[in-house]
Amino acid sequence: MTSLTRGTAARRVAYAGARALVVEPSDTEPPAPGHVRVDVAYTGICGTDLHIFHGDMDGRVSPHAVIGHEMSGRVAEVGAGVADWRPGDPVTVLPLRWCGDCPACRAGHTHVCHRLVFLGIDASGALQNSWTVPADTLVPLPRDLRLDHAALVEPTAVAVHDVRRAQLREGEHALVVGGGPIGVLIALVARRAGASVVLAEPDAYRRSVAEGLGLTALDPAAGDFADALDQWTGGAGAEVAFEVSGAAAGVTTAVTALATRGRLVQVAIHPVAREVDLHRFFWRELTLLGARLYEREDFTTAVGLLTEGAIPAETLISRIEPLERVTEAFTALESGAGVMKVLVDCRTGEGREAR
Amino acid sequence: MTSLTRGTAARRVAYAGARALVVEPSDTEPPAPGHVRVDVAYTGICGTDLHIFHGDMDGRVSPHAVIGHEMSGRVAEVGAGVADWRPGDPVTVLPLRWCGDCPACRAGHTHVCHRLVFLGIDASGALQNSWTVPADTLVPLPRDLRLDHAALVEPTAVAVHDVRRAQLREGEHALVVGGGPIGVLIALVARRAGASVVLAEPDAYRRSVAEGLGLTALDPAAGDFADALDQWTGGAGAEVAFEVSGAAAGVTTAVTALATRGRLVQVAIHPVAREVDLHRFFWRELTLLGARLYEREDFTTAVGLLTEGAIPAETLISRIEPLERVTEAFTALESGAGVMKVLVDCRTGEGREAR
Repeated sequence: MTSLTRGTAARRVAYAGARALVVEPSDTEPPAPGHVRVDVAYTGICGTDLHIFHGDMDGRVSPHAVIGHEMSGRVAEVGAGVADWRPGDPVTVLPLRWCGDCPACRAGHTHVCHRLVFLGIDASGALQNSWTVPADTLVPLPRDLRLDHAALVEPTAVAVHDVRRAQLREGEHALVVGGGPIGVLIALVARRAGASVVLAEPDAYRRSVAEGLGLTALDPAAGDFADALDQWTGGAGAEVAFEVSGAAAGVTTAVTALATRGRLVQVAIHPVAREVDLHRFFWRELTLLGARLYEREDFTTAVGLLTEGAIPAETLISRIEPLERVTEAFTALESGAGVMKVLVDCRTGEGREAR
Repeated sequence: MTSLTRGTAARRVAYAGARALVVEPSDTEPPAPGHVRVDVAYTGICGTDLHIFHGDMDGRVSPHAVIGHEMSGRVAEVGAGVADWRPGDPVTVLPLRWCGDCPACRAGHTHVCHRLVFLGIDASGALQNSWTVPADTLVPLPRDLRLDHAALVEPTAVAVHDVRRAQLREGEHALVVGGGPIGVLIALVARRAGASVVLAEPDAYRRSVAEGLGLTALDPAAGDFADALDQWTGGAGAEVAFEVSGAAAGVTTAVTALATRGRLVQVAIHPVAREVDLHRFFWRELTLLGARLYEREDFTTAVGLLTEGAIPAETLISRIEPLERVTEAFTALESGAGVMKVLVDCRTGEGREAR
């Protein structure tokens, strides 16, 4: 892949209000001290990016901001004082900047810093040819991991974090409620951890994708769903459930499915308070664990899982669109049907000869 | 204390339907093999006993059942095959019988056995002079622990279990939402564990009792409650909260008070599903832990806390009524005002000369 040289006409995707993404020229500034300019290879689009596209996050995303945070690329240029990186190094970015001083940071939970700046939402993101970031956000990629596959490191790190929050152990039963990209990734990471995994997903296409990956996928609205869970767990219930649907019904499905002392990891965003059967939490001594984002170790684990092939990136990537067709990429994802992961190819023309 | 000799006229309190407790003669049968007959000294009345008294648990409590499960006493007579106990040994009873074979038992969580038999609800309890129980339910008491104080071992064990579920560490902030007997006991056990404790309780009398024990008690409905919590925790929120109110508002108070990565222990029984701010669980990576009953180690810890004086039993026991006045004991407790813990003195006349 050829690096953009300084002064080359670079382009970026600017968010210009609801449903308006504008591809426009951008400068390729030399990186400031402690920063690194990265030639972006691929940027994935996630549910949060879709929320931004729909105008739902205008209070947080500035006009003409560059969004995108699931990415891979290569170091192009390093600023003063950056010793650990060289041009050409394959990298992804841990898109979090924390304050170091709030109660969460002081307690060691920097990834949920009270003043967290999320690159791609609160600051410039990866939907551009060239992205300059603080050097300490970089995460190295092995040279034998394809860069399109590496764009899945960030969502895989979400799944790794969720599974880690659950303290999932080999041989346990894990129910994943919700079969979108994160649900499927959680199911794959849980399977790799040695769990017996069932995915609950009402949409037949999503179930078929999961089944194509060798996962068991059930329709939670089907009349025999409870019986199937009983049969699966010998009547005990699942030791772990992941709520990835964001729906009220998903919460009920997950809580009901848990074994005594079971752990429920709350992954999805629920925009309103949900009715939760607290008596069942009491009676079965259940645990609910909120899980948000990831820490650096989750990124490292995710890189390893993608490199070893535990995450079948080729199957999960439904479509790759060039930067100029970014709007088509977003509309393909929002249509939902037949689509799991959509990437935007952010390489310049010269860089596109190979993945 | 003089033991009842076999054939002495013993009495028991029979539940005869809503608001009807009948003091009636009972037989003093010799204990079956593996069982022990205990001369009951004191039996405390708890919220569950009140529910039974109100007729709310008629589906579970048989007519003419003997209720009561917070007790102290002395071994009176041992059955065949019982080697570890001698007449006169001061004891309390871990009132749980489990199946050993259900998923909860097989996973080692016998106290939440799916077929749990709770002595005093599902089987004969302690509101009688003489109670015969399986020998393996007995918990030894030190001879220097007064038997009226020892009737608080069971509710203290609930509190110990709740604090253990929280994995409360020295120096952490613990908010206890609900200042009834269990809330106060949790606050005391948490304080003994080295936590900084605040009790949230709307009732002024209950706050005054807590303050009399050296606890800080705040009115969660007061306008400056949130500010007071901020000042207490330096704006970080509490690392741990205990929901002991059973009220919808209590859940909100507890969730809102928690620091990032805070743990909420759900102690109270919520008869209906409650609206829970799952977004906050996600955003702050909170944990909710259901906590029910206790395990043997919680009883052992509770005995120690009462013996060392960390639980000021004398202050917590508001009233002691003799067995014949059991109905007065129940009505005193249900009136709530001015009452924390009410005990029934179950000793026979001969036994009453000393505590």
